Amino acid sequence: MEFSDLYGRDLICTQDWEKHELDLVLDLAGRMKRERFSPQYTSLLQHKTFFMFFYNPSVRTRQSFEVAATELGGHAQFLEPKAMRLKTEKTAGETVEDAAQIMSRYAHGLGIRILEDKVGAYGQGENLLREYAKWASIPIISMAHDKFHPCQGLADAMGWAEWFNKGTKYPPDWRTLKGKKLLITWGHGALTRSWCSVQEAMLIGSRYSMDVTVASPEGYDLDPQVVKWTEQNCSKYDASFETINHPTKGYEGAHVVYSRHWMSPEAYQEGEFLKQQEIDKALKFPEWICDADKMALTDNGIFTHPMPIDRGHEVTDEVASGPRSCIYDVGENRLHVQKAIMALTMAGI
Amino acid sequence: MEFSDLYGRDLICTQDWEKHELDLVLDLAGRMKRERFSPQYTSLLQHKTFFMFFYNPSVRTRQSFEVAATELGGHAQFLEPKAMRLKTEKTAGETVEDAAQIMSRYAHGLGIRILEDKVGAYGQGENLLREYAKWASIPIISMAHDKFHPCQGLADAMGWAEWFNKGTKYPPDWRTLKGKKLLITWGHGALTRSWCSVQEAMLIGSRYSMDVTVASPEGYDLDPQVVKWTEQNCSKYDASFETINHPTKGYEGAHVVYSRHWMSPEAYQEGEFLKQQEIDKALKFPEWICDADKMALTDNGIFTHPMPIDRGHEVTDEVASGPRSCIYDVGENRLHVQKAIMALTMAGI
Amino acid sequence: MEFSDLYGRDLICTQDWEKHELDLVLDLAGRMKRERFSPQYTSLLQHKTFFMFFYNPSVRTRQSFEVAATELGGHAQFLEPKAMRLKTEKTAGETVEDAAQIMSRYAHGLGIRILEDKVGAYGQGENLLREYAKWASIPIISMAHDKFHPCQGLADAMGWAEWFNKGTKYPPDWRTLKGKKLLITWGHGALTRSWCSVQEAMLIGSRYSMDVTVASPEGYDLDPQVVKWTEQNCSKYDASFETINHPTKGYEGAHVVYSRHWMSPEAYQEGEFLKQQEIDKALKFPEWICDADKMALTDNGIFTHPMPIDRGHEVTDEVASGPRSCIYDVGENRLHVQKAIMALTMAGI
Repeated sequence: MEFSDLYGRDLICTQDWEKHELDLVLDLAGRMKRERFSPQYTSLLQHKTFFMFFYNPSVRTRQSFEVAATELGGHAQFLEPKAMRLKTEKTAGETVEDAAQIMSRYAHGLGIRILEDKVGAYGQGENLLREYAKWASIPIISMAHDKFHPCQGLADAMGWAEWFNKGTKYPPDWRTLKGKKLLITWGHGALTRSWCSVQEAMLIGSRYSMDVTVASPEGYDLDPQVVKWTEQNCSKYDASFETINHPTKGYEGAHVVYSRHWMSPEAYQEGEFLKQQEIDKALKFPEWICDADKMALTDNGIFTHPMPIDRGHEVTDEVASGPRSCIYDVGENRLHVQKAIMALTMAGI
Repeated sequence: MEFSDLYGRDLICTQDWEKHELDLVLDLAGRMKRERFSPQYTSLLQHKTFFMFFYNPSVRTRQSFEVAATELGGHAQFLEPKAMRLKTEKTAGETVEDAAQIMSRYAHGLGIRILEDKVGAYGQGENLLREYAKWASIPIISMAHDKFHPCQGLADAMGWAEWFNKGTKYPPDWRTLKGKKLLITWGHGALTRSWCSVQEAMLIGSRYSMDVTVASPEGYDLDPQVVKWTEQNCSKYDASFETINHPTKGYEGAHVVYSRHWMSPEAYQEGEFLKQQEIDKALKFPEWICDADKMALTDNGIFTHPMPIDRGHEVTDEVASGPRSCIYDVGENRLHVQKAIMALTMAGI
Repeated sequence: MEFSDLYGRDLICTQDWEKHELDLVLDLAGRMKRERFSPQYTSLLQHKTFFMFFYNPSVRTRQSFEVAATELGGHAQFLEPKAMRLKTEKTAGETVEDAAQIMSRYAHGLGIRILEDKVGAYGQGENLLREYAKWASIPIISMAHDKFHPCQGLADAMGWAEWFNKGTKYPPDWRTLKGKKLLITWGHGALTRSWCSVQEAMLIGSRYSMDVTVASPEGYDLDPQVVKWTEQNCSKYDASFETINHPTKGYEGAHVVYSRHWMSPEAYQEGEFLKQQEIDKALKFPEWICDADKMALTDNGIFTHPMPIDRGHEVTDEVASGPRSCIYDVGENRLHVQKAIMALTMAGI
């Protein structure tokens, strides 16, 4: 294993980290999963604090981060910005400069979650994280923001590799992901959802040499910059990349099927996030559901999803609860991946 | 002490557990109270997490559960479902199937609190707990739901037995409850209150061979199923049971007086919980207050209440703060009982 | 060092404590800052709980108290009274008598934060703290209330003394504060702010023999009782005190400049807190800003502020982020001071 000192590093997108650094996270996460309460790990953050700043509420993310800190011997503090007056263009309040510098005196890491409905334009959430990172002397960890969700991406890759190494090797050999076909397909739905998880999956899949297909109805393009990075990753790591507008073709030969609703690029207009308009549109493409017929077209593919699942819209119960569904394993991996990230960036192991 | 492996067991109502299992909880709670910070107990949940899911807010219950986890070396996570989109008949969201299975990967136990005003009909709160229990592989602990409040019932029994063993034996001999008369009497009030605590008290009192009298104005019957179970318990454990509609007669010869407001069976209509209507009705029976004159009719009885108390309505200050009030001892026992339950179900001691 | 047993003591205002007791807190806070994770300190509150009761939300105060408890090995529980029905003149609910006595059974300390906008008249917040203190058997610690903010005052004094002892002695010699001129000056602003921090600074500055000048526009007098105590402190500890209504004169010869907005005594009318009216008035005195020109009049003075800062109103960026700003050091000291207070009052060291 190549040496890499990740102590003090921010994690805002996996694309910001070197490939061998991602390997380090996954290797450590695998060992932490195998020996969950080993004394090697349970004192790493003893008496130390991780702040969790939730601009958007979340049960899963909060649970997994707070459990992660607890299992490393530390404490995660749940904070909601409603209690904090941050200065904005329109209102008086505290600057990020001041907030981040004081938080750096108290805590050993700061997680931030801010999704599309809390900002006026796509990318402002990421800007806020990078503003915190500029001023803080402690690591800033994305707990999902409007552009990316690095912990989810790492948990995804870990879960898929576990599946392809079942009964052979643990922690898995991450290289087994190479050449596997990853289908990321839009799912219709009664909720409107962020680009963060699917974009992170595109990036990390391509970093691990997966052949990536992104399928969606017309009008549901993702961030062109992320598409470009994915193309570049595929080119560098010897994999293929395509985007299609067909609800079934992408399933052919797929090894991993990721069916998930996401909003359209028209979600923002004049600084407003048009949630209801997106929900209304999302229900118009009922053929975009992952079901057993479509899964039959795959190469014995597994079904993956970052959860929570909108069952009956994004995927049928038969597939989501079926024997080739890895959703709970991936969900569990959030915990292990986050423990590994915290250990590496906050404890410096 | 009979051996019983309670590891992994749910606690939704004390009636679900064997009598000797309740003895185990009370014995352990008594020892934990005597040696509160003994190293025997302070590492039982080290680095482990208990999720607390509050559909209804509560200060007391949250305090006592979170302190309990802390004193066992673990951590209780305070969660509010407002941050969670659960699928319902009317709205998209996550299924309990998915939520419970993921939570089982992260935590070692899950407490749920859901009271009558959060559901559309009596019993739906209990149904939710049992749905979680169906899918979760970790223990589900009721932190009070529309039907029952097992931790309160155990804290009650513990507090009453302590009183009857004062100066003799600690932990108390639970058999001293046998033959004591327990009066559970409706109190008028400016709040409307759940059936959960009083129904649990009926069940656990009768399990410990207490003679149970339930007194209320006409129109304030409790759940017929619980009444039937109480009768059966009394019959099995050699005790008597009666329900009366008189505000003073029940006091005669009572050893424990439990005066508490509860809502009427008319509280639900067409899927709505009619809180204000219940509050208006609750003020119409001012003679239903526990006062010193009524307490003088008892056999040197003690006053008990699950708190918070609606002083001046359910009971006079003179009685609530008087020398025969066991309210603070019972309140404290919530902590010790919950520590014992967590240790037995989550740590498997 | 004089011996003093602070175990079990409340801290509602520094004026309630003896001078040598404040020295004890500062000395211990200094040692705790120097050796932050020393095993001498990390088990002092092991398995013990500090309740934090936030009638008003706060990010900074919550962060620093929760980190403090964690670093002492204990746990701070974040509680919001919205979940608690306290009895008031107008509504049914639980009495402080009952709440405080039960909390004393669960926790080892109770922090309360209640500011002017949650009460109907100045001083009612303090009354609530003293009512809790009357009934609780555990220490009541003010986390800022309408009249005082003792933890801020102690963090201020610590930060100023650190500055005057730079490169010489650590923990600092608190006597170096003697004879330093402290200017507490009203700042204009777009927020309305409490009297608590500035009043505490007047009291603790004068206890440490600082010459205190309070400057404000006419109509912004502070609590006459606190002014009187400050005068008495100055007289006892050989220092001078003055109040002026001039925006620049106070800067002359100052060693510490504390520029902060505060509300006027007209903020309450007929039991209502007129927040917007205060904000409107606060913007009418733009000459009341701390800037580099004014700082040039001082005796190489430092800039201090309890944060969050309303930059551009109370102070310019140039001063707040300049080389003579001690704001982050003072902010950090909240942590160390609170650890010391908790160790002394809750662990009895």
